Amino acid sequence: MGAALAAHVGADVTAAGGPAAVAGRKMSPKITTELLKQLRQVMKNPRYVQEPVQAYIVPSGDAHQSEYIAPCDCRRAFISGFDGSAGTAIVTEQHAAMWTDGRYFLQAAHQMDSNWTLMKMGLKDTPTQEDWLVSVLPEGSKVGVDPFIIPADQWKRMSKALRSAGHDLVPVKENLIDTIWTDCPQRPCKPLITLDLSYTGVSWRDKIVALRSKMAERKVMWFVVTALDEVAWLFNLRGSDVEYNPVFFAYAVIGMNTIRLFIDGDRMMDPAVREHLQLDSTLEPEFKIQVMPYGSILSELQAVGAGLSPKEKVWLSDKASYALTEAIPKAYRYLTPYTPICIAKAVKNAAETEGMRRAHIKDAVALCELFNWLEKEVPKGTVTEIVAADKAEEFRSQQKDFVELSFATISSTGPNGAIIHYKPLPETNRTLSVNEIYLLDSGAQYKDGTTDVTRTMHFGTPSAYEKECFTYVLKGHIAVSAAIFPNGTKGHLLDSFARSALWDCGLDYLHGTGHGVGSFLNVHEGPCGISYKTFADEPLEAGMIVSDEPGYYEDGSFGIRIENVVLVIPAETKYNFKNRGSLTFEPLTLVPIQTKMIDVNLLTEKECNWVNEYHRRCREVVGAELERQGRHEALRWLLRETEPLARVQ
Amino acid sequence: MGAALAAHVGADVTAAGGPAAVAGRKMSPKITTELLKQLRQVMKNPRYVQEPVQAYIVPSGDAHQSEYIAPCDCRRAFISGFDGSAGTAIVTEQHAAMWTDGRYFLQAAHQMDSNWTLMKMGLKDTPTQEDWLVSVLPEGSKVGVDPFIIPADQWKRMSKALRSAGHDLVPVKENLIDTIWTDCPQRPCKPLITLDLSYTGVSWRDKIVALRSKMAERKVMWFVVTALDEVAWLFNLRGSDVEYNPVFFAYAVIGMNTIRLFIDGDRMMDPAVREHLQLDSTLEPEFKIQVMPYGSILSELQAVGAGLSPKEKVWLSDKASYALTEAIPKAYRYLTPYTPICIAKAVKNAAETEGMRRAHIKDAVALCELFNWLEKEVPKGTVTEIVAADKAEEFRSQQKDFVELSFATISSTGPNGAIIHYKPLPETNRTLSVNEIYLLDSGAQYKDGTTDVTRTMHFGTPSAYEKECFTYVLKGHIAVSAAIFPNGTKGHLLDSFARSALWDCGLDYLHGTGHGVGSFLNVHEGPCGISYKTFADEPLEAGMIVSDEPGYYEDGSFGIRIENVVLVIPAETKYNFKNRGSLTFEPLTLVPIQTKMIDVNLLTEKECNWVNEYHRRCREVVGAELERQGRHEALRWLLRETEPLARVQ
Repeated sequence: MGAALAAHVGADVTAAGGPAAVAGRKMSPKITTELLKQLRQVMKNPRYVQEPVQAYIVPSGDAHQSEYIAPCDCRRAFISGFDGSAGTAIVTEQHAAMWTDGRYFLQAAHQMDSNWTLMKMGLKDTPTQEDWLVSVLPEGSKVGVDPFIIPADQWKRMSKALRSAGHDLVPVKENLIDTIWTDCPQRPCKPLITLDLSYTGVSWRDKIVALRSKMAERKVMWFVVTALDEVAWLFNLRGSDVEYNPVFFAYAVIGMNTIRLFIDGDRMMDPAVREHLQLDSTLEPEFKIQVMPYGSILSELQAVGAGLSPKEKVWLSDKASYALTEAIPKAYRYLTPYTPICIAKAVKNAAETEGMRRAHIKDAVALCELFNWLEKEVPKGTVTEIVAADKAEEFRSQQKDFVELSFATISSTGPNGAIIHYKPLPETNRTLSVNEIYLLDSGAQYKDGTTDVTRTMHFGTPSAYEKECFTYVLKGHIAVSAAIFPNGTKGHLLDSFARSALWDCGLDYLHGTGHGVGSFLNVHEGPCGISYKTFADEPLEAGMIVSDEPGYYEDGSFGIRIENVVLVIPAETKYNFKNRGSLTFEPLTLVPIQTKMIDVNLLTEKECNWVNEYHRRCREVVGAELERQGRHEALRWLLRETEPLARVQ
Repeated sequence: MGAALAAHVGADVTAAGGPAAVAGRKMSPKITTELLKQLRQVMKNPRYVQEPVQAYIVPSGDAHQSEYIAPCDCRRAFISGFDGSAGTAIVTEQHAAMWTDGRYFLQAAHQMDSNWTLMKMGLKDTPTQEDWLVSVLPEGSKVGVDPFIIPADQWKRMSKALRSAGHDLVPVKENLIDTIWTDCPQRPCKPLITLDLSYTGVSWRDKIVALRSKMAERKVMWFVVTALDEVAWLFNLRGSDVEYNPVFFAYAVIGMNTIRLFIDGDRMMDPAVREHLQLDSTLEPEFKIQVMPYGSILSELQAVGAGLSPKEKVWLSDKASYALTEAIPKAYRYLTPYTPICIAKAVKNAAETEGMRRAHIKDAVALCELFNWLEKEVPKGTVTEIVAADKAEEFRSQQKDFVELSFATISSTGPNGAIIHYKPLPETNRTLSVNEIYLLDSGAQYKDGTTDVTRTMHFGTPSAYEKECFTYVLKGHIAVSAAIFPNGTKGHLLDSFARSALWDCGLDYLHGTGHGVGSFLNVHEGPCGISYKTFADEPLEAGMIVSDEPGYYEDGSFGIRIENVVLVIPAETKYNFKNRGSLTFEPLTLVPIQTKMIDVNLLTEKECNWVNEYHRRCREVVGAELERQGRHEALRWLLRETEPLARVQ
């Protein structure tokens, strides 16, 4: 989804958009005078702060550094009205300022009232948060922040800058927004889904064994799991506490002989969950899971930290919160950008791969139905972007093991297609027509896998120029999908392949080319990706799954993107330099690429064969499933749409 | 040259070789017992050290962080016997250890006696210098190093590590190796060459004006020029103090109203130099050059440092020596990875570009003569690698404005070709034959430009496999050379284009694809390059000059490399996204690529046309020069070698 990647997988944030980076959101400003007055009171209230704080920082994000957050964690949106996916608010006694990036200048300006100053990040004259604080604060000020929300590396940078100017960054234990947010929604605590071996391929016990062996390699005694998808993956559990992401609020602390799971609610009363986690069985002590309250993570971690012997290290992500990082004395911390779970999770096993294949076949069935339906309905002039998105969801929900969407559907026609992270809203909702290009970027969570596919269609007759641009994008898509590269190659080395055909004609797109995709987990996951900026990505290896989604966007006119989810597989090559072995991609997405949009004369023979072979597989695999499900009209549509291209020599 | 780049332009050091990374150097170990004894004595001698040092570090390199160094700076080779281009020696009271990388394990093992322990960098169990020091030193030790040789960033890292273990890194003013090196060669101090506007395009005065405007932009008052090629470029002077690099030992300190040049010897007595620098003219004070002794840089800089008012910053490269960096109080330092001179120098003006063109035409004339000669002589079995290299130099030296070679010629046949940085020596010298591939990587300094070209030839009948590999390398070479990419693209984004054809067949090469090339200056220069590792490179812009040199190496059999020096030029494209403009490359090197080695059936039509168009230009441009120089036999060779390829459809 969202051709651009999430920040943590190396997106170009000036062009990329998070889930909420949409055009045309609610644009009336929120009146915040009273709220700010209340916040400034609690900033001085000894009930909440040891000493008054002269400034309070409200970051985006939750205590797990999640990309998607629950309503109860939308504190920055609550205090300011601005609900874009990225932004940091700082409130002082006199000022209230909001830092956000180029995607959100317009939206933030509309959603915030005159109490707020917009700080446009990326512009030359915009001060950093630190510089601004130093310029407005009285001498020797205290700046407060919730230590659970701020990642340790950010804390370090800001604390250093403030200290050198004579101020102090101080942790405020109670979140001050929560103290004034009287109608704050409850933290979700929804039932869990247990996944058996047929979905996960590896039991949670074996995952713990593998994790402990990684810990032994690095000589660490404890590992702290802070990312929600890592907790879910480790225990083969799923939840629905956060929209689109099948995760649940929890932490885990894994020792060499202990397992502690920090989770709230009566979810652990569910017999299926108890059985799955073997909570009531007689187990070897090292596999006995101790269930503890979600809120006790800090005190438990502090106890761990206090009991360490010399050389006993504790492994944490370097993006973990300041609060948890600080619980471990500095000398005992072992911080890495990617955790061993993040890396293990990225390499899908046979069961996960098979699940992803099944999910993509079902997803293709739903999209064949949708496009067949659109083809009939669009000419009537009654299908809007929202109607189309709803219809896509309806068809998907008919498929087995459907759980929910994997992100907000990007359903956009004509000029809306050029807004990379568009989401149709009543005030922007455009009607599909036979005169405009339609771009649909959508996906779903099935119990066996996560999908994310973009197709760009024309329901009338595309212009020669539209076809030309589409064909360059297709050439880039194929160049990545068919690339053969040595084992150990990092994904960012493939990014230029996706752009070469566009570059040849002076065109380009301002986002990355691909992101990692979870297995019935987050649609964006690290540590791999394909982007000109992702230099911290881990090498690609067989079993990893990424998206391949080049595009081209013409402001005010149209947007084109072609996205498949692809699996990294071993490649057979004629030679084998230094015995390194080679890799390539296999498309998991099997939805026809509209041949009407292709200018066949711009394709090489190899590219033409790629399209024909891809469509042959769509026919064979998705055709069989359409047949099995008795969806004969959609099958006829598929057969017509997958006729081989005839290349003019 | 040397397909791999120098470390400072992002080379893969495990595969790359510096100038001395050759097979078959002098391999008898140097007996160092007595030398080490003497060194350990001076490490305690109050004449040289304030307090005894328990360890002394001997880095590679000179006070200017040069890639190529003068004999008087080869201190690490003197103390250890190991003369590879990269390595750091550390001597303690009990131990002597040498850190070097994979290129040099064998060579170092052979050249050092049993007093030395080889520390194989890159292997898992090899300790870092800091860790090793901490493990062997008695409590509270002093570790000495020459503060002029160690770059500031390295000092910082090592000092921090030692301090946290209770030791101290201390600067030892007098170089301790020099105190025991009784027959140390003198620091070279050769006459200077002045370059007039027809070569440089811009006067040194205008370069100073431009530099001061960059300084004003960044609000710095002083700029310290420490790199030798930057001093040479700034003053439009050249020297010959270092082999292959037309530079001279000097520093410069540029203020907003002053120019100080630190240089030794009677070179400033040369009337041509005095005239060039207008030393005896009545000039505006801000262009008056104060000439000072080379050795006075530190005290002068300390005086500058002591006289700074608040907000007056001094600009230094972050690779400048610890001694010079430390002369400026920390609060006044402005450090950048690339200096404004480094960046300005990389973008060649019209005069420099024309000079580079002329130099490359002359170089092509010499190589046409050479290859024509080789073709006749090789079958006789009397041409060795050294003979061929000497002959190449002889033909080059016949050309106008020839100064010297730009690096040690890599003349290698058969299995020697697979040693990427091979230099023929008597004990490895192989005879060229009609049965083996011959690889020649060579270049020269002409007063109007620097060349660097690699051609791979067969003087008999190449095998189908050799042709196949050559053709993949050629496809990679063309993919880079013909690439069109947006203005502002960094060179590392093009690296994969060079590998794609090799990757498709499971092949690859373990070095970068290109490096910046100076204009009658160093054959390796920053800040641009084309490498999978060069993430700190500056964006490519029109006027920059880089090499394009993919290869393929089969250990024990043969090596293939095809290298042109190419100029970044604007590209005409059909469209122009966001008005960014596009760039491409124009080959400056105009030497035929042996068509006998090409398997035409593996080329696309576009690639075939590229070769034919390239050869048409070689004929037209170099042919005319051969004609003018009356070199009719070489002209006939050129005409035959540039016959168009006929592609079988």
